[in-house]
Amino acid sequence: MPTPRPRGRNFFFAPGPTNIPDRILGAMHRATIDFFDPAFLDVQKAATEGVKRVLKTKQHVLFYAANGHGAWEAGLVNCFKPGDLVLVLESGHFSNNWSEMARDIGLEVETLQADWRHGVAMDALEKRLTADKAKAIKGILVVHNETATGLAHPIGEIRKSLDKAKHPALLLADTISSLGSFDFRMDDWGVDVVVGGSQKGLMMVTGLSLTGISAKAMAISATNPNPRKSYWDWAAMQKTNPQRFPGTTPTNLFYGLAEAIKVIDEEGLENVFIRHHRLASATRAAIAHWGNGARNNDLKISLGAMTGKVGAIELLCADATRASDTVSAVLVPDGHDANALRVHALNRYNLQLGGGLGPLAGRVFRIGHLGDLNEPMLLGALATTELAMADCGVPHTPGGVQAAIASLRKR
Amino acid sequence: MPTPRPRGRNFFFAPGPTNIPDRILGAMHRATIDFFDPAFLDVQKAATEGVKRVLKTKQHVLFYAANGHGAWEAGLVNCFKPGDLVLVLESGHFSNNWSEMARDIGLEVETLQADWRHGVAMDALEKRLTADKAKAIKGILVVHNETATGLAHPIGEIRKSLDKAKHPALLLADTISSLGSFDFRMDDWGVDVVVGGSQKGLMMVTGLSLTGISAKAMAISATNPNPRKSYWDWAAMQKTNPQRFPGTTPTNLFYGLAEAIKVIDEEGLENVFIRHHRLASATRAAIAHWGNGARNNDLKISLGAMTGKVGAIELLCADATRASDTVSAVLVPDGHDANALRVHALNRYNLQLGGGLGPLAGRVFRIGHLGDLNEPMLLGALATTELAMADCGVPHTPGGVQAAIASLRKR
Amino acid sequence: MPTPRPRGRNFFFAPGPTNIPDRILGAMHRATIDFFDPAFLDVQKAATEGVKRVLKTKQHVLFYAANGHGAWEAGLVNCFKPGDLVLVLESGHFSNNWSEMARDIGLEVETLQADWRHGVAMDALEKRLTADKAKAIKGILVVHNETATGLAHPIGEIRKSLDKAKHPALLLADTISSLGSFDFRMDDWGVDVVVGGSQKGLMMVTGLSLTGISAKAMAISATNPNPRKSYWDWAAMQKTNPQRFPGTTPTNLFYGLAEAIKVIDEEGLENVFIRHHRLASATRAAIAHWGNGARNNDLKISLGAMTGKVGAIELLCADATRASDTVSAVLVPDGHDANALRVHALNRYNLQLGGGLGPLAGRVFRIGHLGDLNEPMLLGALATTELAMADCGVPHTPGGVQAAIASLRKR
Amino acid sequence: MPTPRPRGRNFFFAPGPTNIPDRILGAMHRATIDFFDPAFLDVQKAATEGVKRVLKTKQHVLFYAANGHGAWEAGLVNCFKPGDLVLVLESGHFSNNWSEMARDIGLEVETLQADWRHGVAMDALEKRLTADKAKAIKGILVVHNETATGLAHPIGEIRKSLDKAKHPALLLADTISSLGSFDFRMDDWGVDVVVGGSQKGLMMVTGLSLTGISAKAMAISATNPNPRKSYWDWAAMQKTNPQRFPGTTPTNLFYGLAEAIKVIDEEGLENVFIRHHRLASATRAAIAHWGNGARNNDLKISLGAMTGKVGAIELLCADATRASDTVSAVLVPDGHDANALRVHALNRYNLQLGGGLGPLAGRVFRIGHLGDLNEPMLLGALATTELAMADCGVPHTPGGVQAAIASLRKR
Repeated sequence: MPTPRPRGRNFFFAPGPTNIPDRILGAMHRATIDFFDPAFLDVQKAATEGVKRVLKTKQHVLFYAANGHGAWEAGLVNCFKPGDLVLVLESGHFSNNWSEMARDIGLEVETLQADWRHGVAMDALEKRLTADKAKAIKGILVVHNETATGLAHPIGEIRKSLDKAKHPALLLADTISSLGSFDFRMDDWGVDVVVGGSQKGLMMVTGLSLTGISAKAMAISATNPNPRKSYWDWAAMQKTNPQRFPGTTPTNLFYGLAEAIKVIDEEGLENVFIRHHRLASATRAAIAHWGNGARNNDLKISLGAMTGKVGAIELLCADATRASDTVSAVLVPDGHDANALRVHALNRYNLQLGGGLGPLAGRVFRIGHLGDLNEPMLLGALATTELAMADCGVPHTPGGVQAAIASLRKR
Repeated sequence: MPTPRPRGRNFFFAPGPTNIPDRILGAMHRATIDFFDPAFLDVQKAATEGVKRVLKTKQHVLFYAANGHGAWEAGLVNCFKPGDLVLVLESGHFSNNWSEMARDIGLEVETLQADWRHGVAMDALEKRLTADKAKAIKGILVVHNETATGLAHPIGEIRKSLDKAKHPALLLADTISSLGSFDFRMDDWGVDVVVGGSQKGLMMVTGLSLTGISAKAMAISATNPNPRKSYWDWAAMQKTNPQRFPGTTPTNLFYGLAEAIKVIDEEGLENVFIRHHRLASATRAAIAHWGNGARNNDLKISLGAMTGKVGAIELLCADATRASDTVSAVLVPDGHDANALRVHALNRYNLQLGGGLGPLAGRVFRIGHLGDLNEPMLLGALATTELAMADCGVPHTPGGVQAAIASLRKR
Repeated sequence: MPTPRPRGRNFFFAPGPTNIPDRILGAMHRATIDFFDPAFLDVQKAATEGVKRVLKTKQHVLFYAANGHGAWEAGLVNCFKPGDLVLVLESGHFSNNWSEMARDIGLEVETLQADWRHGVAMDALEKRLTADKAKAIKGILVVHNETATGLAHPIGEIRKSLDKAKHPALLLADTISSLGSFDFRMDDWGVDVVVGGSQKGLMMVTGLSLTGISAKAMAISATNPNPRKSYWDWAAMQKTNPQRFPGTTPTNLFYGLAEAIKVIDEEGLENVFIRHHRLASATRAAIAHWGNGARNNDLKISLGAMTGKVGAIELLCADATRASDTVSAVLVPDGHDANALRVHALNRYNLQLGGGLGPLAGRVFRIGHLGDLNEPMLLGALATTELAMADCGVPHTPGGVQAAIASLRKR
Repeated sequence: MPTPRPRGRNFFFAPGPTNIPDRILGAMHRATIDFFDPAFLDVQKAATEGVKRVLKTKQHVLFYAANGHGAWEAGLVNCFKPGDLVLVLESGHFSNNWSEMARDIGLEVETLQADWRHGVAMDALEKRLTADKAKAIKGILVVHNETATGLAHPIGEIRKSLDKAKHPALLLADTISSLGSFDFRMDDWGVDVVVGGSQKGLMMVTGLSLTGISAKAMAISATNPNPRKSYWDWAAMQKTNPQRFPGTTPTNLFYGLAEAIKVIDEEGLENVFIRHHRLASATRAAIAHWGNGARNNDLKISLGAMTGKVGAIELLCADATRASDTVSAVLVPDGHDANALRVHALNRYNLQLGGGLGPLAGRVFRIGHLGDLNEPMLLGALATTELAMADCGVPHTPGGVQAAIASLRKR
């Protein structure tokens, strides 16, 4: 028998899916109407236009009845064909998974290796692009915000590197855990394919994913003979406005998404970003306080292996300019089990923290600070994390919440 | 135009109504069926039996389509007739209001005056009862938990005083803000009339109130010629099981209440009490820390007037044995406006604190810690209260959350 | 064990409460916020203004946390004091019940007796008013739409009778089952007190009731010494805008009511009336068809007694100009049990019909055709009623639905 | 501006998606919890076991975050590789679409052509299978219930044909519009791959689809080198119990599905089938009545073309033994536009009928009679269809509802 869950709200602080505002759940709570009913088509259009504003694009946006992994696959099969070479920028578990998927479906994959605490350096990228005289690289795959490590790659800089190298490769960015939470500019940054999902910054249930598509990528897809496109085929979907799905349109999910767009519009997208940065900064202040400012430069993680020792609590991301505004991975001192802490926090206090993935399993816990979040929610989660650390004997300097309060006071 | 409300959940920490668990809101979200439909009558019965368990009574429980003030009136008009004398134990704003209602409907009202920080002393009560040789006092009115001040009167002790004085007066207790949150024992404590509402410890929307009725009180009501009983008439309601309402039964409210009973049963009523005490203790620890242990013995409040000065943050309730496990009223130093703090907390952080009532307006804010509450919710509210105090310049010793964490660690 | 309910939607065709549109249930599905929160006060104001439009009044509207019987009582205790004489126009079960309530609370009650199939004739009323030289009659109590019989009294005509007799009595009208369904004009018709509830034409759950109050009635209430007013006291409530409730405001019910007003506004009130008349006419066409146009003039019902025989299905209301647009009571031939038919319809087909009240129990079933209703809903109910009559051997001419379709085609 | 939709419930009688019971919508209305939370995994397991009972299988069931077209693709890519030959049994629009998908992803497709009003004859199938001495046919693709035409192919007979021919081809059946509505027996009938979706007989929103997989098909998939499997890869999903999704599990959809299973279990699956047959028979009785028993033997439809004339209303399916218990396609006399009728029914009466697909566009309308349906719902839809036909001048014999009532009375 499972331990009965403590009362009160579940504090959901895994970095995805995220808290869904009640009004969005309410919007999905609707009786069936036909998916060709004009009353529904208006909702689908509004959601589509809204996502374009969030992506900052005037180009194409298409949706799938699928989760984010479906959108990953859709991007790959529409743009490439078996044997094409793609360059993946390593950032953590999810960049590795996307690589595997690309390999599975027959692409040639080269990984631009990097330490998960720092990510890929821009000069390393430029060097590799410049070296590709034959323009063999057909696509660059980058995870904008690596959910597993809490590190954000600078997409605008990557575009500059491509331009500097005059390289024609398509730029594909996974924005699953950044979309609608911090700045992303599809058109300004020249991103060709944006992969996104409903269940993070868009504050929706899982099951609807999406792609922003540049005119260039759409044209490539149109003539791409890859037989894999079927369910994901952009050409078929984009014939009508709003798009036609292969099979039945997932209407209730669009009701939720259209409501999410209203929620974002009411706050203002830029205000959403400011709020996420404020709350992320407070989180990082608490983490730094817990570890008493520890800075461990010897720890390295790449390609599924972690080396070095952890003596004190520390933010995994070692590059302050790349620290994610949606998720913070927190290193736990050696000899302590991050997962035991998570189980305790959930079973005793109804606080859900995220776990470490791959080589980070048991070594970090992750705090998701994205979506429908405010100060009392975050401070409650940080305070309870500290309480749980005390219960579990995880060494830390008490007072993380005070540090977070001080950070919030600064604005 | 109102200030746009900040994003994320509203942290509702006024002492009533309270947070409603999603599953209870969901239970009310039901299409209409007939109120004589057996499928509904089963729900009504289950809710009634459940409330009996919460009241710890095997006697009568009746419901009203009304809020708690309706239940106040129902108790008075069923038990008394114009000209009857009732003795009210002063505890704060709500004991005063109940007095006024009794006076409005023609009863003679005598108030056993007391300082709101301490409540009525048991020896004062015994003295008054003993002096009533003629047994002119027909009823004792006491608010179990005074929502305005955060003070709980000991109902079991009051029963002992009545017994010691061999006084036959009916004992009426208002449990609106204690019911289902801390211990109350209708039958053991010989309470004749219990007044309760749906919207606090029962975690429901407002609109359904209730009365526990002893056999003695029911018998008195049956022969009471008071013409005011009509809508509130116990005799008419108790003819069927489950009861018949005057007019239409509020079915959707019963769906919610039946679900609330399930929520309570799953945790176990005694565990609910333990949780409330644990969270209340943590709240008091934070308050004591903010005020650096200040203890102001000169402050007096009674019958609508407050005298003395407040130099530091302090819990209003000055008797530790009577401090409420559901609400804490927090004195704010003179020269600072508790309401300005509340407005700021709401508008900036989406935290709703309760205000001071009557002479306490602007002098205290109240933290409701009842209903569907857990550690992260409470710690988030306390941390945000501290943040708001800092923003507003309300003098306090920072670190209230750490004190609360320490309190929670003790168990 | 109860018979398992058949699948599919419950067809709720009792004449109240009524079908609640999903969007109204959804609007009530909201987390708690403070009842003084400006965001809520806006909702309360919108609901209040909306109800004024439905009542067609520019005078006062006040709400109660209560059902319709509470609003009945509120009207009586605010306007009258013990010993005052009121004249009740007999229409059926509910006019009788209102009489009883008036008597219970100490008023003198005189009933202007009438056959339930026809209601009170206007000349009988004028005669009685003219005879009252001393103006002893302080109030006229009339049920606008008698839910038990499906008969509507012409309120405008009653006002003319009062004016013709120059009689100053207050005019109180119960609009519980007409409000928002067919025409009612509080100000034009000089109604002093309108009693209404949330659960019929306003398509809401039970628990919120209301009163429209003329300036004249409000002034009388202000000086009325009746000690019964307490919970229902208009003077206390109308001090603020929106009104202050005695005790906690039932916020979630107001969310629903405000949404109901939007639903009505979107259709347009006059269109709501046209729709109700169209659907009521179709219902009457089906009933007439089932009874093959039978017209039984010998049947009499008054003051709780029914005399005469029923040989064929027939509409209870014998005056076509007074046939209700919200409810039709259907006489069942002698020797057949209307309640057995209802139980069968519910248990076999999930169709809820209303039962007969008082002397009509088992003699009629009632079809409620009010609220959120359209052609397919009504035709489904009529067809299933015919199916259930066939199952139960209730004599009828088959083809009621065709008659209803023909009626609907006429517009 | 769109025509305002009439009030009252939308009568949704397109053959999919279907009416969703309120309790299923309510079950999905839940705050996020982690998809690895044991409380959620229990829900996922219960849904999975329930679907196995509905499929009547003890073999594998896997889900996709996708709609039914995703499940189509999943079945094809797991079982076959480019160049494999599959034999498709023609039944209508959807069998043709599945063929196209198979061709798109590189399979060789042979269609066993048939008239859409009759479907494939079993001797034609046997003949083709016997002729395949080389066992070149790797799979048989059959739509169990063709949603576009209202024709059901006898899967058990198809299995017998395969056995008789001793043919090893995999048998793939699309049960999207039959699953949970009429009998299907995966294990008894030796079906290797069952394709199903959430949005029809399972009464859920669109977005979750599923496959029943025989041990034989699972083994083939495990060694199938088809690179297309990625998102649909059975081998990866079936490693854990309950299954692991590629990417995030669509938790809220599983809450709904688990509730749907409860709904089905409470009625009993066989009772669900009996109810569907009873309601389908009543529908066919109404249609036959409207057309006065017309029987047009000259009309032929195949491979996207329709020849012959329609003189009277008639059920499209010309083989009574194959008439679908979930959808009836109704031929409209030449010179009348089925879609104009549908638009009128929706805009005037809030009744949604399904349209004709492919060559049937404008020639038929479809009545979906599946899912959460009962007599009053169906009779309301049939009556309103007749009303709309009268409005639009579509020739018909009035009295279809009486015929339906007579059919329902027979049981």
